[in-house]
Formats: sequence, structure tokens, C-alpha cells
Amino acid sequence: MNFDDAVTFHGHACPGLAIGYRVATLALKELGVRSRDEELLAIVENNSCAVDAIQFMCGCTFGKGNLIFKDFGKQVYTFIRRPHPDALRIAVKWEPPSDDPETEAMWKRYAEGDRSKQVTAMVQDRKARRMKSVLEADDSELFAVKRIRLEIPEPARIYKSLACAACGETVMEPRTREVGGQVVCIPCSEK
Amino acid sequence: MNFDDAVTFHGHACPGLAIGYRVATLALKELGVRSRDEELLAIVENNSCAVDAIQFMCGCTFGKGNLIFKDFGKQVYTFIRRPHPDALRIAVKWEPPSDDPETEAMWKRYAEGDRSKQVTAMVQDRKARRMKSVLEADDSELFAVKRIRLEIPEPARIYKSLACAACGETVMEPRTREVGGQVVCIPCSEK
Repeated sequence: MNFDDAVTFHGHACPGLAIGYRVATLALKELGVRSRDEELLAIVENNSCAVDAIQFMCGCTFGKGNLIFKDFGKQVYTFIRRPHPDALRIAVKWEPPSDDPETEAMWKRYAEGDRSKQVTAMVQDRKARRMKSVLEADDSELFAVKRIRLEIPEPARIYKSLACAACGETVMEPRTREVGGQVVCIPCSEK
Repeated sequence: MNFDDAVTFHGHACPGLAIGYRVATLALKELGVRSRDEELLAIVENNSCAVDAIQFMCGCTFGKGNLIFKDFGKQVYTFIRRPHPDALRIAVKWEPPSDDPETEAMWKRYAEGDRSKQVTAMVQDRKARRMKSVLEADDSELFAVKRIRLEIPEPARIYKSLACAACGETVMEPRTREVGGQVVCIPCSEK
């Protein structure tokens, strides 16, 4: 699995994905192989493109319960390998280089909706430059890394399913609601 | 991209992933190709293994903002292709076949932590049977499908970053907090 494979999963190449790829590569180097089940755990403090590279490379995925999202808007990624409480905290400190005034002006036009050929080409070029810069930088330029100790979150649990008394669709038991003595799903409870 | 590729992404094969694979295949058949950016949108009402197949097959990923999670504990998946407000709602109605009493007893032992060779082999076998049954069923046996109309959610936005006055790490602007006249990140605001 390399950067190109991560691009295929994500759908397109971008600097955010490149950052996630570098985070994932470092995490795997420090903590061992990709997660088949829930043995490796990633706590991500944002939901940007970078997280797709972490899902793909580390096997810490939304559907397996070993990707924990904390909505802090920070480029911080913490990894733990069960059953060890030692965690690796990777904070991204890389800042994109500032643009020359012409590029800056073009970017502003793009942000305002201008999709003319010239503007789009410049934006693609800017993206490609930033991506290259991330992929070629040293870890020490990109990240501030710390070893910390964390409480290991519980593994994902499996619950039984019940039928909603209103719509008949099945619902995971802890997400049912009781309305007028009947067990219903959340959408039906809100009707 | 086939089921085996989805298994590689997820990390292991399981019946839940097979269900997601069938949902994704139907969604792509009805709504067109995999999402490179945010043009295809999936609203998922659970965070089970199935969602990994949807991320992988449809390109509706956690990191791109076109995977919307509603924590309803339901096997319901709704897809929209921007800019059309017509949505495809797929509710899973498939129920795993009931087990014979011996398998049932073994499963109970497994759930209680028994990982002996005999019990583990039975559980693997049961999983494989269920997976096969999902992969071979007709759509009409698996799903109740509806065409509905939805408000199309806004695309993901990009915000600027600020430095937290306490830890110095960068934070997405709408996730900053003001504490004593200083702009800080959420973890620092809670200290």
C-alpha cells in the first residue's frame, strides 16, 4: 500500500491526504503492522482528507470502531496498540509555504467560485507543489511527536436488534426509544 | 474494485462487510460511478462494518465529508448524487438464518470469551456461511428500497487555522474557544 493506493481510495490527490499518509507511515513504523481488527486504534482530532489516508494505511476505519473522532479541529493524531497503554501522539506542525501575490490573488478568485481554465490550472499547480513538499519533508519538519499514556478505550460491542413498533425496521437495542409503551427507532420517536 | 478488495481495506471478511458491499453495489448501479470528490453522498444510520464497504466501494468517505453518520443504530443507507434531490433509501431487511442448537451453544461460549480451537472454528464457519448467503442473495431478499426526496446537505467547507494561545498548536477557527480573552483549542479550554 503506497500513496497512489491511498489516492485511489480517497478519490483524488491533495495535500491533506499527503499529510495523513505521512502520519500513517510514521505510526506504522513506530507501532507495527496495519490493523486487521481493532488491535491498533487511532484517535483523530479532525475529519479532514488526512483521515482517509489513516483509515486506508493503518486499517483504523470508521466501520471497525478503531477510529475515534474527537471534533477538536486539530491536526493531531494519537495511536495506541492494544493492550499497551503507551500512545504515540503526532501533532502536525507543517505550515504550507506562503504564496506569491499573483498566486494568492488567483486562489482568492478560485475560492469565490472562478473556475476559468487559468485559475483552475494555477490551483492544481499549487496543490501539486504543496503535496510534493509534504511527501518529501523530513518527519521532524512535519510533526511534533510525543509518547503519552492513555486509558485504552473499550473495543466496539455487538448488540442485539429489535424491530421498531412503528416502521418495522430493525434497530440496535441501545438506540431504541420508548414512546407510549412501545419500542421505536429514533426517527419514528421524533415524528 | 470487488469484494476481496473491500476485505483488504476493512482488514477481514465478515457478514457485515458483505451487507455493505451489496448495498454499495446497488447504490452504484442506480446512481452511477464512485465519488472522486463529494458528488455522491451517503447517509449511514450505523457505524458497523458495512460502512467500510460503502466507503471503499462508493468513495463516500469519512475524510471527504460525503459520509454522513446518523447514530440511529439502523441498517439504513441513503444515497444522493448532487445536484439531484432524488435519494435512494436502502433498508436492510435480511435476517441471519437461525442456528441449530449446537451452533447456538458454541456461539454463546464464544461470546463469553471461549477461544478454544473447536469453538473458534465453529464461529469462523458460521461467519463464512452467513457471508456467502448475503453475497448470493437477490437484492429483493436483502433490501427494501425506496426513492425519496431529501434536502441536499451542504458540501464540506474549508476554514482557516489559528494557533491556540495555550499549547501553540493550530486549530480550525470554528473549533476555537475564548477563555479569559485568549483564543484556545477545546482540550486547553477544558483544562
